[in-house]
Amino acid sequence: MADDRPAALASSTRTPVGIVGGGPAGLVLSHLLHRAGVPSVVVDSRSREEISTTVRAGILEHGTVQLLLDSGVYSDGASRRVLEEGYEHEGVELAFGGRRHRVDFHDLVAASVWLYPQTEVFADLAHARERDGGDVRFGVQDARVVDLEGDQPRILYRDAEGLEHEVLPDFLVGADGSRSACRRAVPEGQGQNTGREYPFAWFGFLTDAPASAPELVYSHSPHGFALVSQRTDTVQRMYFQCDPDEDVTAWSEDRIWEEMRRRTAVNGLELKTGPVRDAAVLRFRSFVHAPLRHGRMLLAGDAAHTVPPTGAKGLNLAVADVRVLAPALADAVLRDDTTGLDTYSERALERVWKAQHFSYWMTTMLHTLPGSAPFDVRRQEAELATLAASRAGQTLLAEGYTGWPGSQV
Amino acid sequence: MADDRPAALASSTRTPVGIVGGGPAGLVLSHLLHRAGVPSVVVDSRSREEISTTVRAGILEHGTVQLLLDSGVYSDGASRRVLEEGYEHEGVELAFGGRRHRVDFHDLVAASVWLYPQTEVFADLAHARERDGGDVRFGVQDARVVDLEGDQPRILYRDAEGLEHEVLPDFLVGADGSRSACRRAVPEGQGQNTGREYPFAWFGFLTDAPASAPELVYSHSPHGFALVSQRTDTVQRMYFQCDPDEDVTAWSEDRIWEEMRRRTAVNGLELKTGPVRDAAVLRFRSFVHAPLRHGRMLLAGDAAHTVPPTGAKGLNLAVADVRVLAPALADAVLRDDTTGLDTYSERALERVWKAQHFSYWMTTMLHTLPGSAPFDVRRQEAELATLAASRAGQTLLAEGYTGWPGSQV
Repeated sequence: MADDRPAALASSTRTPVGIVGGGPAGLVLSHLLHRAGVPSVVVDSRSREEISTTVRAGILEHGTVQLLLDSGVYSDGASRRVLEEGYEHEGVELAFGGRRHRVDFHDLVAASVWLYPQTEVFADLAHARERDGGDVRFGVQDARVVDLEGDQPRILYRDAEGLEHEVLPDFLVGADGSRSACRRAVPEGQGQNTGREYPFAWFGFLTDAPASAPELVYSHSPHGFALVSQRTDTVQRMYFQCDPDEDVTAWSEDRIWEEMRRRTAVNGLELKTGPVRDAAVLRFRSFVHAPLRHGRMLLAGDAAHTVPPTGAKGLNLAVADVRVLAPALADAVLRDDTTGLDTYSERALERVWKAQHFSYWMTTMLHTLPGSAPFDVRRQEAELATLAASRAGQTLLAEGYTGWPGSQV
Repeated sequence: MADDRPAALASSTRTPVGIVGGGPAGLVLSHLLHRAGVPSVVVDSRSREEISTTVRAGILEHGTVQLLLDSGVYSDGASRRVLEEGYEHEGVELAFGGRRHRVDFHDLVAASVWLYPQTEVFADLAHARERDGGDVRFGVQDARVVDLEGDQPRILYRDAEGLEHEVLPDFLVGADGSRSACRRAVPEGQGQNTGREYPFAWFGFLTDAPASAPELVYSHSPHGFALVSQRTDTVQRMYFQCDPDEDVTAWSEDRIWEEMRRRTAVNGLELKTGPVRDAAVLRFRSFVHAPLRHGRMLLAGDAAHTVPPTGAKGLNLAVADVRVLAPALADAVLRDDTTGLDTYSERALERVWKAQHFSYWMTTMLHTLPGSAPFDVRRQEAELATLAASRAGQTLLAEGYTGWPGSQV
């Protein structure tokens, strides 16, 4: 790919670790590497502002929160925002068959999750990286990764003036999200993609209203799935199952609330409504790329795997990858010991597949399939009733939802 | 249906309860009614010999065994065959991803199941009914149920000489299996059928060989599912997933064992082989008819619901229906109190739907779908690995498999 090399470079930066993607996965990695004494360079084609304002999921496993706290993200004496502005949720509700049933994580597995939007996690990490003097380059243009097969991979990009820059990392990390350019740069035949599409999507929106419930309510109904979740005391986040090709503009505020009510009132939930904003159709799928290592390139987070949002696993899984990857990279860079990198893929994928199954389970238990028979709806209700009647069943769900306590890789 | 009435009747029998179907469901009901002081008449178009020799499933929940023992099936001082000739299984094995994992029912839920073929249950019940002077008419011809809508339903049949007989029950019970004539006699619009077909079946056979494992082994493999089960010390029962249209005659003994090995050796199981007999393709489906009561007719067992065999629930579910139905019928007959019958359908269906879900779960966790992506196989392995790593997950499975201890209706 020598023809990719431009005639002149405005800058060339050598770094032990070059990270493509400045979202939470990339920034957590850069932060953890910094704490371990390993410098890195992060590039992202999005601006800091753009990442900060994209509405994303908001549930953090206890292990994710613990990592933010323990790794010194809040070490400047600033408030530990995740604890102060986040909301600890000690359970979720399953609503089905005309009733609501609380799954009490605290009681079942002595763990909680935190409601703290991904955008806030990003803000905290971006602040920490800035505070610690990290080299994070937002808003670059035309970022590319080349020379993956040799000993010196390169990241190329152009700045706002159109000048070409290069980063020369010893190790390259693709943390650039589900449409990952890094993953797509893996030479044909060296990686395997596998996944599953779903014949439905989520219609998600924000509303300025008080919370309708103190914790997330997963509502199964013959009319389809709905999720009542929260953001703050005055802003709530809600979703309902829709067609992947649903046209957002066809949905008036009245129609949106009518649909939400149809799927929640049957289970005894009364919604507190308000103005609707940020409505969007969120298509989703299950996807895994393997292995997570290709020579000197490592993939992490959405770049390597995507889960349906039903289990709230996406961000947590990215952080779990990085938790394995950071010490492995530090060993390779500081001690020339690549045993951690050699086993990174296998160790991270074990959790990835657990999360894939968990997300699939939550998804298929709660959504109605287009054209599903009454049998399928009734069987789902029986599954939910079986869980509601079984401490073991609820414990299995709680283990997955809170992140398999005790099984942190 | 007055035109169904023949010119002359060879016999007419009044009885409180007329039962169509002399398999385990019908005979357990007749036996329990007898113990409660309620006479009944059972008719079945099959001969006692025919029912005795049809190879069927062989796993009894602890509650099923307890009912046989407690209700005096073995009250004549004869051996309690189910305990003496059956085999107590305190667990099952899940084989997947190259390994075997035992689910220890005894440890998890303090319960067992018994390996005791349905044909033996039938033999014990037929013996008990005979011993107790029960009126069980095997081998009748052209059995029909008529006048379901009025106060006097009738069972009509012909004997071997072609003579017509009638039974006039106060209550009619359809325990006549999955192709139930009773269910099909429900007037259009008064019952609801719902179900699901599966794009696979089981190739089942007996073999004269020692046991390959002490307990049932459910083996997941990329080549499809296989179940290694047992009958006696010298006869074993085995199954492998096949196409519903599979031609049994196309399978030589060598080919059968090769296929069984392909699906079990990958998980470290070594099969003990022997001559193969009674090979048959067992198609299966999920099916529920509701309600279970139509006026004076009650449905029980396979006549009202069918489950895939993966969870070994069929016979147990029939017995569970009858456990609810027998006292309800006794109340109606002896005390003119129909409150039990009024709620029979709802109470029995609660367990039916739990079992439907459990059977569906076991089926979809273990079988490969035709044309399934690598994702699906890998996700199934992750589900099985999640269970193997979670006491809660295994407890959930054990609860369902042994029959939800503590939740007996």
